[in-house]
Amino acid sequence: MGRHVMKNVPVVLFGLGNVNLGLLRILVEKKELLARTYGTSFVVTGVADSSGVAVNPTGYSWDELLLLKAGKGKVSRLEGFLEGVPHDQLPFHTDAGLLIESSPVNLETGDPGLAVARHALKKGWNVVFANKAPLVLAFDELHHLAAANSCCIAYSATVCGGLPVINVLQRDMKAASLKSFHGILNATTNHILKALEAGGTMEEAIKEAQRVGAAEADPMHDVLGHDAANKLYIIMKSFSGFTGTIHDIDAEGIQHITAEQLAEARKRGNTIRLIASATPEGNSWKLSVRPTEVKSDSFLGQCEGWEMGIQFESDLYESISMKIVEEDPMATSAAVLRDAIDIIN
Amino acid sequence: MGRHVMKNVPVVLFGLGNVNLGLLRILVEKKELLARTYGTSFVVTGVADSSGVAVNPTGYSWDELLLLKAGKGKVSRLEGFLEGVPHDQLPFHTDAGLLIESSPVNLETGDPGLAVARHALKKGWNVVFANKAPLVLAFDELHHLAAANSCCIAYSATVCGGLPVINVLQRDMKAASLKSFHGILNATTNHILKALEAGGTMEEAIKEAQRVGAAEADPMHDVLGHDAANKLYIIMKSFSGFTGTIHDIDAEGIQHITAEQLAEARKRGNTIRLIASATPEGNSWKLSVRPTEVKSDSFLGQCEGWEMGIQFESDLYESISMKIVEEDPMATSAAVLRDAIDIIN
Repeated sequence: MGRHVMKNVPVVLFGLGNVNLGLLRILVEKKELLARTYGTSFVVTGVADSSGVAVNPTGYSWDELLLLKAGKGKVSRLEGFLEGVPHDQLPFHTDAGLLIESSPVNLETGDPGLAVARHALKKGWNVVFANKAPLVLAFDELHHLAAANSCCIAYSATVCGGLPVINVLQRDMKAASLKSFHGILNATTNHILKALEAGGTMEEAIKEAQRVGAAEADPMHDVLGHDAANKLYIIMKSFSGFTGTIHDIDAEGIQHITAEQLAEARKRGNTIRLIASATPEGNSWKLSVRPTEVKSDSFLGQCEGWEMGIQFESDLYESISMKIVEEDPMATSAAVLRDAIDIIN
Repeated sequence: MGRHVMKNVPVVLFGLGNVNLGLLRILVEKKELLARTYGTSFVVTGVADSSGVAVNPTGYSWDELLLLKAGKGKVSRLEGFLEGVPHDQLPFHTDAGLLIESSPVNLETGDPGLAVARHALKKGWNVVFANKAPLVLAFDELHHLAAANSCCIAYSATVCGGLPVINVLQRDMKAASLKSFHGILNATTNHILKALEAGGTMEEAIKEAQRVGAAEADPMHDVLGHDAANKLYIIMKSFSGFTGTIHDIDAEGIQHITAEQLAEARKRGNTIRLIASATPEGNSWKLSVRPTEVKSDSFLGQCEGWEMGIQFESDLYESISMKIVEEDPMATSAAVLRDAIDIIN
């Protein structure tokens, strides 16, 4: 399978949090494998964090960026820092490259991620998203922009991290029509439910989830079911021909679930999970996210703690279930790499 | 997404059993969707069954072929039947097309499937396999032949039918190294174990599986673990860099399992499954297929009856589990269609 011409792909890392730092770690660790298997090397020509943007057409060293962040440094310390240049005016130095958009979720405006993604696509750059917000706010627009500029977007990392939910639905369920979908799409709330089941309080369970580090800065985004609703929206837009908006998803979180309710459910052989579901309703879909009592020995009942799982039926492929244990954000970084390789090959 | 140029793809159906008849049914049912979504129409220019081969450069009607087989007819009745032409001399009328190789498994020589696949690849035709035997006997040779003739082979249908095991491992686990693999790869034996667990005898359970129709003509191929070993081999060749042969898999079937053993296991909170496993051993792999006691509430313990499932760990994507309910061969036909669309697009 050896390829003899190495392709150097200019990459801009937008955001230098867990996902993109994990990606840099994988690039360091898997450098030879990536070169051998895909004939590819990623040249990081630009980076951005909350301090601003920096560019280096010959590429920042991966280790340099990892060291900067290990020392709590900011992009503003890097050579090539562009004083006063706003995030979405980040200059793209070449005709084609890859933006990896892993900035924090902002569901009000989608920015800065949405603005920089638009800017990149108009310049003919491909975009890989780890940040859900731009897709939730502008799914169709981003797809149209990509098509109009002959470039691609990919976002398998936005839904259940390493579990290839979007890819399996879009690529492997060819010619099929979805009949129903149920999923546990948020590991933080699933972990909180486990802690509650062990007899803790909601407050303790949330603190524990934050300590372990998987909960977003604002854990209420997870707890209220918004994160799961965003993922369900991206899934349904990607596969089912769903034409509604995020507001068509009836979302209820786990904030009122108590240890007592879980104990009661247990007596009935059941447990409570935050289930995102899609069921057909006329010519469209009924979408919801809500705490749901499920059989303890069912597939979703067996998804525990840091697991996420989905189960769906289609007319051709009967019923398929998939789950992942994701205690660590590394699998999400790997999913970004998977998308990046797919796009450039 | 509308494509305005329809691509007519010449297709030869090698074998007209459940898989290719299911494919024809899907082509009839999904004709408009396939045209709209993929801009593709499959023109069946050749067919083969045990009576021989027939060709029609302008294409047989899908319904005609379905009617022929519904009436227990043979290819020898078709216009275009080639008297005395052996299977592997089936003439390919165009420069490029697609052979769908769904002939019966023959693990002695691989023929006629292996012979016709070689013949097709040398003519520059792509090949989609539903038949495992050619891959088990000539995995590397077929890949080299495809590369040498600038064509492709695909075989996602050979492993767990509709469950995209090969695709997820090859496409979605990019840059990852496999750490372990465990799977229930044969639904017939899993169904037999369920019937045994309900108190039946091995003989009754096998008859029931044959009656329902999923057991191959010779159910001992399933029962002795050979089918599962073949699938494990294809998986390991596809993803792990495994360089051994099928004989390196230590295969033991379920033929000696009794209802009593299952009842004993149950008392321990366990059940028995025919588990195909791969664990690292030095620089290579230890591969086996054998009846194994597993926790009843584990993922594989919960794969029951007509379900197949896999569970694997890698260095980047933690632990992923997937399963499918496959009572009907339709999902395998759909997997063939999925491969066909991937190859021609």
